Amino acid sequence: MIKNSDVKKIINESLSLKSEKLDEALVAQQKQFMLPTEFQSAATKKAHNELYQGYLEAFNRISAELDSVDRSDVKSNGSAYRSLKIDETYNMNAVYLHELYFANISDLASNVSMDTLAFMRLSRDFGDFDRWQSDFISCCLASRCGWAMTYYNIFTQTYMNTFIDLHSQQVPVGCIPIIVMDAWQHAYYRDYLTDVKTFTYAMMKELNWRVVEDRMKKAERVAMALKAGEM
Amino acid sequence: MIKNSDVKKIINESLSLKSEKLDEALVAQQKQFMLPTEFQSAATKKAHNELYQGYLEAFNRISAELDSVDRSDVKSNGSAYRSLKIDETYNMNAVYLHELYFANISDLASNVSMDTLAFMRLSRDFGDFDRWQSDFISCCLASRCGWAMTYYNIFTQTYMNTFIDLHSQQVPVGCIPIIVMDAWQHAYYRDYLTDVKTFTYAMMKELNWRVVEDRMKKAERVAMALKAGEM
Amino acid sequence: MIKNSDVKKIINESLSLKSEKLDEALVAQQKQFMLPTEFQSAATKKAHNELYQGYLEAFNRISAELDSVDRSDVKSNGSAYRSLKIDETYNMNAVYLHELYFANISDLASNVSMDTLAFMRLSRDFGDFDRWQSDFISCCLASRCGWAMTYYNIFTQTYMNTFIDLHSQQVPVGCIPIIVMDAWQHAYYRDYLTDVKTFTYAMMKELNWRVVEDRMKKAERVAMALKAGEM
Amino acid sequence: MIKNSDVKKIINESLSLKSEKLDEALVAQQKQFMLPTEFQSAATKKAHNELYQGYLEAFNRISAELDSVDRSDVKSNGSAYRSLKIDETYNMNAVYLHELYFANISDLASNVSMDTLAFMRLSRDFGDFDRWQSDFISCCLASRCGWAMTYYNIFTQTYMNTFIDLHSQQVPVGCIPIIVMDAWQHAYYRDYLTDVKTFTYAMMKELNWRVVEDRMKKAERVAMALKAGEM
Repeated sequence: MIKNSDVKKIINESLSLKSEKLDEALVAQQKQFMLPTEFQSAATKKAHNELYQGYLEAFNRISAELDSVDRSDVKSNGSAYRSLKIDETYNMNAVYLHELYFANISDLASNVSMDTLAFMRLSRDFGDFDRWQSDFISCCLASRCGWAMTYYNIFTQTYMNTFIDLHSQQVPVGCIPIIVMDAWQHAYYRDYLTDVKTFTYAMMKELNWRVVEDRMKKAERVAMALKAGEM
Repeated sequence: MIKNSDVKKIINESLSLKSEKLDEALVAQQKQFMLPTEFQSAATKKAHNELYQGYLEAFNRISAELDSVDRSDVKSNGSAYRSLKIDETYNMNAVYLHELYFANISDLASNVSMDTLAFMRLSRDFGDFDRWQSDFISCCLASRCGWAMTYYNIFTQTYMNTFIDLHSQQVPVGCIPIIVMDAWQHAYYRDYLTDVKTFTYAMMKELNWRVVEDRMKKAERVAMALKAGEM
Repeated sequence: MIKNSDVKKIINESLSLKSEKLDEALVAQQKQFMLPTEFQSAATKKAHNELYQGYLEAFNRISAELDSVDRSDVKSNGSAYRSLKIDETYNMNAVYLHELYFANISDLASNVSMDTLAFMRLSRDFGDFDRWQSDFISCCLASRCGWAMTYYNIFTQTYMNTFIDLHSQQVPVGCIPIIVMDAWQHAYYRDYLTDVKTFTYAMMKELNWRVVEDRMKKAERVAMALKAGEM
Repeated sequence: MIKNSDVKKIINESLSLKSEKLDEALVAQQKQFMLPTEFQSAATKKAHNELYQGYLEAFNRISAELDSVDRSDVKSNGSAYRSLKIDETYNMNAVYLHELYFANISDLASNVSMDTLAFMRLSRDFGDFDRWQSDFISCCLASRCGWAMTYYNIFTQTYMNTFIDLHSQQVPVGCIPIIVMDAWQHAYYRDYLTDVKTFTYAMMKELNWRVVEDRMKKAERVAMALKAGEM
């Protein structure tokens, strides 16, 4: 893996940008995901990886442009700064959500046991586990080119479901993502055409509950870390 | 303070809703904020509190409606479930952001010292403290009826600035809010008309850095809690 | 009034842009509106005119930038072209809607008679005139920082009401605007604070039905022009 | 073809709605399109027709629900009226844009001659014909799940290109559609995966210029009808 500072320098040179400061933190590097999934064709997986790479490259380019963009006359009606910040969030969310999605699918031996944190917390906050599941599926079906997500909400201090349109519309402030499902047409159209429901059920059967459990444990620690007082 | 379960029951009765399950967690109760601020008129403050109350009532009503809404035929083209979930996030964000905003303004003795976490972390992640400040002001000026926010980003593991349009457009996934600034026209129009810049500077002079420091300490604990591995 | 081509040249020079082609059509010049209205304070009117001017300047600047922006590598994830086109529509709509609004208010002797096209067509398409009025008021109250609009819909071939959020969200394709009402907070907050309802009723009492009638006659001619076949 | 009033009655009965007034105008009935196109697979065409039908059914259902929805307590924070109106525009645009798209593609003998209105007007307003074409292609590539459109703009009184995100974001007020291109992933993903560019070029080779010419003639008549004065 090359250093972020080197990535940033290469982008700056290729765009002929001269930045006073190189924000190395805001550089994403492509991760590799093993996807032995059976619910997606090889063509979909390959194309999905290309899309992910495209978002990542866009995020890195925008990050470089933001390092040196003019901040002297920012206006809400339109300015390069405003446009770049919007696309920074859009592509950053796209990269993050795709990584979360790729990491929590493709478990051919998918299984959730009743003594897991995941099972207990989702049962607690949704009434019972089946209610979580049916609500999550509703979110998959409700999204317009977007995402379904189970997340820990630091405001309500509960686990909730939501859907996002595109990558950055309807995102709850203060969400810690736990389960992420891609509901863009690019995730299913090659293999399922308009049949989102079958796609959704097929994905649910391969949900990687070990990954989910790991995220849940972290979310519980986050909850504890925040509990000392009001945000 | 009355119990959330009682609030939920009252809403359900007033709307003639019969829910199998009352989600008591998703009930917000109005907080009181002392706002001895000098950069806002009493009229603005009173009206702002009414707006906050309106969002809170909307959130509670929607929460009750979601408890019993039909989930059997959810569609992305339009369904009561989809619409309610969108407005749930919109109003939940509105309530949360307003509470964060009210709590971090109105310090007439506003002061940030160089040995605070806030000063050190913002200096680290933005190059220096002035760069954070000028970038944050750019976010205030860039937003179209919305918010500026400094937040801890659990994906990039850095402090970042962003702006939100309305209450739920362009929200980063995985943001822990630290500094929140209301840039809706309702926040300044009565007192400043179109002069957002003067409003922004006036607010910055009353930023409550003690509250910010407290949030920053929590964000640091969140960062630690998450560091054990990839989300 | 100076020539559009001269306006465009001045903008290009001030921005140091070199365009192969100057699109003179896409230059707006500020109109003057007599607003003897009683439902708005002088402060609101003056500020509103400044906002209108700001949109107009943004539209002209963006138009100049689009004349010479790079079109060789346009991407949906983000590119200067994409951002400028979005802001072109946003500001163009803002200019157009404000001009329509300013022109159709401030008639202190507002009156609609039953033998006008406006009365007859709205009665026909909404069941009766009162239903149009109450539905239009609903649109004023439903919009989130945006607009209410009665328009001729070339697809359904009827007069309809709608609301727009901000300036370009939820706009019907193929709408010919007839009655336009500003429901942004900047339109009423100085004078009415949160009381949108009183503001809306006050505006309705000064609606300029002569201007509306003139637009309606044109819409009828548009309807005839389109009737020769399917669009 | 059954009568709109009968369609409306059937919807009302199936939804157990009791409306004082049945708005028959706001009922769409499915059109049939011959699509001998070579740039789309049969699977894509069949699925696309299903999507179109889904939008149409949603539009009709929402129209029926709007006939009887409560208008007594409409609020911008959320209300059934607000949600239905948003989805009315979304689905109405979806139906209209799909019909425009299906009608202007699939001409295997596609040809534009220099003595057509289309050629002359696009050349006039874009500098030359090739500039229109390259700008239109840029719009196809810039849209995020949405549309590219050449349209007559009744405000600027010129032909312009734009793109729409989803079905109702970034729509210009007062647009008369002339050329419509579907850039949602559902339009190309089955056949082209991520290769939007090849899809776009393939579509352009089958653009039905006779249909475009017919729309252009109407737009010219609209322009004349409006010219008598300011809108």
